[in-house]
Amino acid sequence: MTSPMITIRDVRQAAEVLRGKILRTPLVYSSTFSKMTGCEVFLKLENLQQTGSFKIRGATFKVLRRRSRIGGQGVVAASAGNHAQGVAMAAAQAGLPATILMPRWASITKQEATRSYGGQVILEGESIEDGIRKAKELAEGGKTFIHPFDDEDIIAGQGTLGLEIVEELPDADTIVVPVGGGGLISGVSLAAKAHRPKIRVIGAQAAACPAAYRSFREGTPVRVQAEKSIADGISIKQVGQIPFAVMRELVDDVLQVSEEEIGDSIVTLLERKKVLAEGAGAVPLAVLLNSSLGKSCKGKVVLVISGGNVDHPLVERIIRRGLFRRGRIMRFSVCLEDAPGSLHGLLECIAREEANVLHIYHDRGGRNLPVYQSRVELELETRGPGHAVKILDQLRAAGYSVSPSRHDDAFE
Amino acid sequence: MTSPMITIRDVRQAAEVLRGKILRTPLVYSSTFSKMTGCEVFLKLENLQQTGSFKIRGATFKVLRRRSRIGGQGVVAASAGNHAQGVAMAAAQAGLPATILMPRWASITKQEATRSYGGQVILEGESIEDGIRKAKELAEGGKTFIHPFDDEDIIAGQGTLGLEIVEELPDADTIVVPVGGGGLISGVSLAAKAHRPKIRVIGAQAAACPAAYRSFREGTPVRVQAEKSIADGISIKQVGQIPFAVMRELVDDVLQVSEEEIGDSIVTLLERKKVLAEGAGAVPLAVLLNSSLGKSCKGKVVLVISGGNVDHPLVERIIRRGLFRRGRIMRFSVCLEDAPGSLHGLLECIAREEANVLHIYHDRGGRNLPVYQSRVELELETRGPGHAVKILDQLRAAGYSVSPSRHDDAFE
Repeated sequence: MTSPMITIRDVRQAAEVLRGKILRTPLVYSSTFSKMTGCEVFLKLENLQQTGSFKIRGATFKVLRRRSRIGGQGVVAASAGNHAQGVAMAAAQAGLPATILMPRWASITKQEATRSYGGQVILEGESIEDGIRKAKELAEGGKTFIHPFDDEDIIAGQGTLGLEIVEELPDADTIVVPVGGGGLISGVSLAAKAHRPKIRVIGAQAAACPAAYRSFREGTPVRVQAEKSIADGISIKQVGQIPFAVMRELVDDVLQVSEEEIGDSIVTLLERKKVLAEGAGAVPLAVLLNSSLGKSCKGKVVLVISGGNVDHPLVERIIRRGLFRRGRIMRFSVCLEDAPGSLHGLLECIAREEANVLHIYHDRGGRNLPVYQSRVELELETRGPGHAVKILDQLRAAGYSVSPSRHDDAFE
Repeated sequence: MTSPMITIRDVRQAAEVLRGKILRTPLVYSSTFSKMTGCEVFLKLENLQQTGSFKIRGATFKVLRRRSRIGGQGVVAASAGNHAQGVAMAAAQAGLPATILMPRWASITKQEATRSYGGQVILEGESIEDGIRKAKELAEGGKTFIHPFDDEDIIAGQGTLGLEIVEELPDADTIVVPVGGGGLISGVSLAAKAHRPKIRVIGAQAAACPAAYRSFREGTPVRVQAEKSIADGISIKQVGQIPFAVMRELVDDVLQVSEEEIGDSIVTLLERKKVLAEGAGAVPLAVLLNSSLGKSCKGKVVLVISGGNVDHPLVERIIRRGLFRRGRIMRFSVCLEDAPGSLHGLLECIAREEANVLHIYHDRGGRNLPVYQSRVELELETRGPGHAVKILDQLRAAGYSVSPSRHDDAFE
C-alpha cells in the first residue's frame, strides 16, 4: 500500500468517538524552556493521559469503531508496555475481554498495570515478535488482533492528539513528535496540516534505533538493528507501511538524539517542569535542545510528551546520574595515615564544608598502598559544582592527598 | 484583626490582573485515584505553574496592585523556597528590583532558581524569622516588604486558583488544600464558596507541624513546635491572623497526616500520575488516602497539588524508599562456607531468578561468624514482592542460610 486511505475525516470521527472517553490532556507553556531556546515552547502533556500514554486513543477508537465486528472473544494485542495498557483499558471500557501477550521480561509494574485495567496477560516468548506471532494465532481462533501502529483506525485515534494541539494553539509553528512505528506522528501530521498547512511536523527518534530516521532519508521503510535504548517505547525496528506513506508526504524532518541526551531531558523535565516523561516522551525535548532544530527554531513549538510509563528503578538511576552530572554527588578518594583519629580529622573537614556523606569505604589493604597508609573512598552530596570544588580545595589546603574515583564523570 | 476585609471581589480583581501573566494550570481527572477512593478525583496541577508553585499568583497580584506605591528600591521578601521564587519573578515581570533574604541553609537549587528569575539573593541568618527581621529593616529603608501569607492582596492572588477550579468544575463537592500560613486555603475557600456555597474545603497538614490543625480545633491561632518535615513548604509555626479569620469562617475541617504518608503520596503521584509534587503538594493526596476523609468521601474531589519544587537528592531518596517499601529493592545476608566458588554459587542462584545485584558486601572477619564461614550482604532489585519472596525461597531451597538485613523494612 502506498497511498494511504486515511484522511482528516477519520481523525475528526475519532475525536467524536473519543469525546468523554479519554482525557483531553493539557498543553502547558514553559517559560524555562522558552528562555533556554528563544522560541515559545509548549508541552502537550500526554503522560497525564489515562494509562499514562497516548496509546489509549488509537486503541479506544479501534475498538469502538469496529465494535460490531469484534466477537465475544474480544481483542488480542502484543506489547511490553503502553499499547498493552491502552488496549486493555479500551476493551474494558467497551465491555470486551482483552488478551495481551507480553514478553517474559516485561516489567512486573507494566504487567500489573495491564491486569489492573482488566487485561488477561499471557507471558509469551522473548520478543514482541514472538508475541505478535502468538497473537495472530489467537486471532485466527476468533479474537480481533489490534496492531500497535500499522492500522488506519489506530492512526486516526492517535491523530486526535494533533487535533487538540491545533485547536488549542491554532498558530503553532512546529510540533515535535516521538517516532517509533509511526502511528502517532502520521496521525498528528494529518490532523495538524489539515488545520494549518504550513505547520512543521518534526519526528524525534533515538539514534539507538533509527528506523524512521533512516527510512525518511532513504525514502523507503528500512529495517534497522536496534541497540538497547532508554526510549524503549519507540524502539521499533521498522516503521509501519501505512504510517510511512503518510509520513513521507507530511512529515518535514526526522531528527535523532543520543541516549545521554534523552536521559538528560528526562531529568530536565522533572527538574524544571515537574513532570515525569518516559524515554520516548523526553525525545522531543532532547531534539529541541541538542539538534539543529533548536538553533533554527522560531515561533511556537509544541513538544509532545507522549507518555510517562517508566519503571521506578530506572527513574532512580536517571536522577542519580543527573545528580552526578550536575555535581550534586561527587566521588573521590583520599590517602590517610593509618592511625587513630585520621579518619575523624577527614570527616571533620568535610562536615565543616556542610557536605553530606552518602557512602564511605575505608581500605587499608590495597595493593598499591604504602603499609602506613589507608585509602578512603567517599561519595558526598553537595550543593552543586561550586560547592564540590570548594570541598576539594579545602581538603587539599588541609594537606589531604585527593584523587578522583574511577567512574566519576562528575569529577572533572 | 478578626473580621477580614477581603472578599470575592478582590479575588475576581486578582484574576483580571493576573490574566495572561501566570498560567491557568490544568485540572486533570485521575481514574486511578478515583478507583482507589470511590469518588471522582481531580488534580489541580499547580506544580506546573511558573516558578513551580502557586506563590507567583499572590506575589504578582501584590506587586501589580500596589505598583504605584512601590518605590524604585523595589520589593523585599524572606523565604527559603517558593515565595522567594514567586516574588523574584513577579517583581521582574513588573520591572522592579527584588531583594530576597534566604536562610544560609537554603538549597543551592532554590537560590539559583531565585537568581534566575532576577532576584538579588542575600543569605541571612539561620531561620526565616532572621530573614523577616532583616527584610523589615530593609523595608524601613524604602523597600516594600511582601509577607508570604498574612496579607490581603496575597490571599486574593492565591484565591485565583480556587476560582479556576470552580469555573472549570462548577459541581465540585470537595477541595483539599495544603495549609501552612493559610494564605492559599483562605483565598481558595473565599473563591470556591462564593461560587458554590455548599462546597467543602478541607485543609491538609503535616502532623509534624500542626499549627493550622490545632488552631482550627482550638478556635484561635496557636503557635506550635515544628519537627522537621518533608512538607517544608507548609512548615509554618503559626497561621497568619488574616488567613485564620477567613479559615475559621469558611474552612470545613483541617486534617493531618504523617511523614510516611506524605512520602508515599509523592511516590504514588509520580508512579501513577507522572507528576512530581513537593511534600506540601502531596499532602492533600495523603489526606484523601489515609484520613477519615477518604472513607466518607463522595462526589467530585479536587486535590490541590500546590507545588513541585523538591530538591533532587530528596526525590532520589523518596523513590528509593518507595522501592524498598514496594519490595522492588530487597536486602538480606547469607552465610557462606569460606571457600573458593561459594560466592559464585550464590550469585548463580540469584542470576537464575533474574534479580539484579545493586550492592554486595562480603565479610569474612565478623565477630559473630564461625571461622570457616563468611557473610555476604546483598541488595537486589526485584520485580516486586512476589519475586522477592520467590528469590528467598529458592535460596533457602538451595540450602543457603538467609537472614534479613538490619534496617530493611521491605523484608517481610
